[in-house]
Amino acid sequence: MNNYVSDAVIRRLPRYRRYLKKLQDQDIQRISSKELGEIMDVTASQIRQDLNHFGGFGQQGYGYGVAELDQKLEGIMGLDRTYTMGFVGCGKMGQSVIHFINGNEPNFKIVALCDNRPEMIGREIEGIVVQDKESFRQRMRTGIDILVITAPARIAEEVAGDISGTEIKGVWNFGHTDFNVKGVKVINVHLSDSLHSLCYYINHPD
Amino acid sequence: MNNYVSDAVIRRLPRYRRYLKKLQDQDIQRISSKELGEIMDVTASQIRQDLNHFGGFGQQGYGYGVAELDQKLEGIMGLDRTYTMGFVGCGKMGQSVIHFINGNEPNFKIVALCDNRPEMIGREIEGIVVQDKESFRQRMRTGIDILVITAPARIAEEVAGDISGTEIKGVWNFGHTDFNVKGVKVINVHLSDSLHSLCYYINHPD
Repeated sequence: MNNYVSDAVIRRLPRYRRYLKKLQDQDIQRISSKELGEIMDVTASQIRQDLNHFGGFGQQGYGYGVAELDQKLEGIMGLDRTYTMGFVGCGKMGQSVIHFINGNEPNFKIVALCDNRPEMIGREIEGIVVQDKESFRQRMRTGIDILVITAPARIAEEVAGDISGTEIKGVWNFGHTDFNVKGVKVINVHLSDSLHSLCYYINHPD
Repeated sequence: MNNYVSDAVIRRLPRYRRYLKKLQDQDIQRISSKELGEIMDVTASQIRQDLNHFGGFGQQGYGYGVAELDQKLEGIMGLDRTYTMGFVGCGKMGQSVIHFINGNEPNFKIVALCDNRPEMIGREIEGIVVQDKESFRQRMRTGIDILVITAPARIAEEVAGDISGTEIKGVWNFGHTDFNVKGVKVINVHLSDSLHSLCYYINHPD
């Protein structure tokens, strides 16, 4: 088992699980790295290398047990538990992410919402009341695992300053500025990046 | 110049441009691969390798001209022109992406919207009238470069069947199912993937 796992491998793990779920829906119980590579459009060797970081799982001549591999990856990713979430920013982007989480992500429970616009404060979104920044600042000290930032960069930066000393373990940032908080992992979601990559492909067809 | 450019490199190009813009905001006119690597948290060698795919640009002992590199990458990515966009799905996700594009992406012009819910048809969102599926199907034959799918997977799959024969060159898919259309590049945005990677990091602190 190799202990250093690169960001590229970690980013691929969710994709493995999506394909493993699809295989389970089709009642496929085991699969070789070659077959899995074909449906995922990567090489069998990449799959073996990626999974070897976590101990391998596959058996020569047998392949991977689909449900077993899915379950092991679930555990490795920490998706066999639930996480509480607080949202900073309840505009269109915030509401669409809230809706997405409630509809698609049973492991994540939204427990607090915050917005700085007076007309939003006190409103209820999918059962949770929107708090102002001051009361949210108190709320975020305990009982929130993941802070989701769906607010403009300026507000995101203000909030980032309040994170240390809280129980927050990770930040999922939809703002347009990358930011870092010591001791807390931040994943910056850049919608533009994928759109701009698409333009590259449009302009460089195979 | 190396002609094969991997997806990983293409995915990194928008990130280079974000940092180059930040440097320009700070009036920094040139930068070495070492300095750029430090602020981007990658190795100088990775930067040189990535940019060598497109001819290099840097000069030994001088580094990269910040504005010049930004402009060259803009051209390489095809972001020195504009693209028309049509949206399939005008719910919360659709509206937040529409809002995002109009507020942040001057190179992209939304020209058509579609939804299959009767209460949405005929409504105007940021100046564009929502069409039903039948009239949108006609509309999408010409004059749309990029189709944005912000609708449930079932609807996304229906629409995918109508793409061939149109002028659509790329699909930006926010649905939860990857899909492929022959001759058209599809970028699948998986919000869950980044969230699940975040959980991995939360459970494997450095």
